[in-house]
Amino acid sequence: MEAEAAPIVDALNAVEIEGRSPLPMRLFEARPDDLSVRIAINGRDSRFGADGIGTLPAALTTHAAIDMWRPDLVVSVGTAGGWRRQRTEIGDVFMAWDRFVFHDHRIGLPAFAALATADIPAADLRDVAGPLGFKLGVVTTGDSLDESEPDRERILTSGAAVKDMEGAAVAWVASLHGVPVTAVKAVTDLVDHPTPTVTQFTANLGMATAALRLAAVGLLRELSRRRRSGT
Amino acid sequence: MEAEAAPIVDALNAVEIEGRSPLPMRLFEARPDDLSVRIAINGRDSRFGADGIGTLPAALTTHAAIDMWRPDLVVSVGTAGGWRRQRTEIGDVFMAWDRFVFHDHRIGLPAFAALATADIPAADLRDVAGPLGFKLGVVTTGDSLDESEPDRERILTSGAAVKDMEGAAVAWVASLHGVPVTAVKAVTDLVDHPTPTVTQFTANLGMATAALRLAAVGLLRELSRRRRSGT
Repeated sequence: MEAEAAPIVDALNAVEIEGRSPLPMRLFEARPDDLSVRIAINGRDSRFGADGIGTLPAALTTHAAIDMWRPDLVVSVGTAGGWRRQRTEIGDVFMAWDRFVFHDHRIGLPAFAALATADIPAADLRDVAGPLGFKLGVVTTGDSLDESEPDRERILTSGAAVKDMEGAAVAWVASLHGVPVTAVKAVTDLVDHPTPTVTQFTANLGMATAALRLAAVGLLRELSRRRRSGT
Repeated sequence: MEAEAAPIVDALNAVEIEGRSPLPMRLFEARPDDLSVRIAINGRDSRFGADGIGTLPAALTTHAAIDMWRPDLVVSVGTAGGWRRQRTEIGDVFMAWDRFVFHDHRIGLPAFAALATADIPAADLRDVAGPLGFKLGVVTTGDSLDESEPDRERILTSGAAVKDMEGAAVAWVASLHGVPVTAVKAVTDLVDHPTPTVTQFTANLGMATAALRLAAVGLLRELSRRRRSGT
């Protein structure tokens, strides 16, 4: 969503650039420290006047961005849900570890069950997450803001700590291209809290995007430091 | 799936062609009558050794194929589920009309509810469907072979007659590119039948793909006839 990206674009003094694509995505570039950072957001669906969210816009945008930019690392940045049962709190920032899964792809055919869950490995950036105070957790992705009963069962099985609508799609596309991928997600809502997700999401979006801005800037600083020190 | 495409590739004497893409898709071309037909299948996921099914492979393949080929019409061809309550029978062939929807995208935020359902218009090919004996129905798409309770509720609301795992994703990408889109789907299983979907799907796949082969050849013949007669 634009609301998630705008504070980061602003913090990095990123400049909008032109793409050559029929996709509604918007592209930005910035050069903090010695890094070359590109930001792609899905943009607005012209039919509905709403930001393109969910796995399909995320997959197309990621594919087009990787085709254009051949990055060393893809990071899915955004807001997410967490769970009280894991002592997660609103505003917590997570980094993906050690994988991404889908919780709403159910294919009971023997050859396809693993394909449906996907289990896409996350890049190992634990040494970056530590100094920044990021929590670590499996990212579980689905195309719904709520959690249905079958979603809940699959999430309990995977042990995921971060529920979003894009991460595993971004990771799946990055894996097709052979590009390392992670995610940084700020928690807007607690899935197992009695307050409806929509209410929590709306109330906490501003606070979570502020946390996300700090997290993104911190991540880039740590990546730059790591590159300079050659580790 | 390759099993769905192979009989059609064979019937059209289609020849495999090279793509320039990191995607695992396979591409074919054929020239039946005076038409230029290109076939793109998702191909095999190298990690799991299974054909790429569901909305994400469908979206990426459609996007890449449209980028390469700039077609006049996109057709999502495959197998699907139907419902006894609509008097659908195994082997029935449906054409999409009048739209495609998603049944597993639930976004309770006011601005996003319509975006989630999508309601993508289908090309009006009712004059082609009639002579071929195709039934007409709304295509509803989700990333699971089964039908969860929330899926069931949304499908009852949309009144959809055809349940698949790709159609609305293909249609959504085609709509982004401004290309007319339809679907031709042969029924392998009846969602509201007591026999599990997986069992029906496995038992009826061969029969349904044979029906699909006839349907695809018939559709191309009718499109060619329509073009020649200038209607």
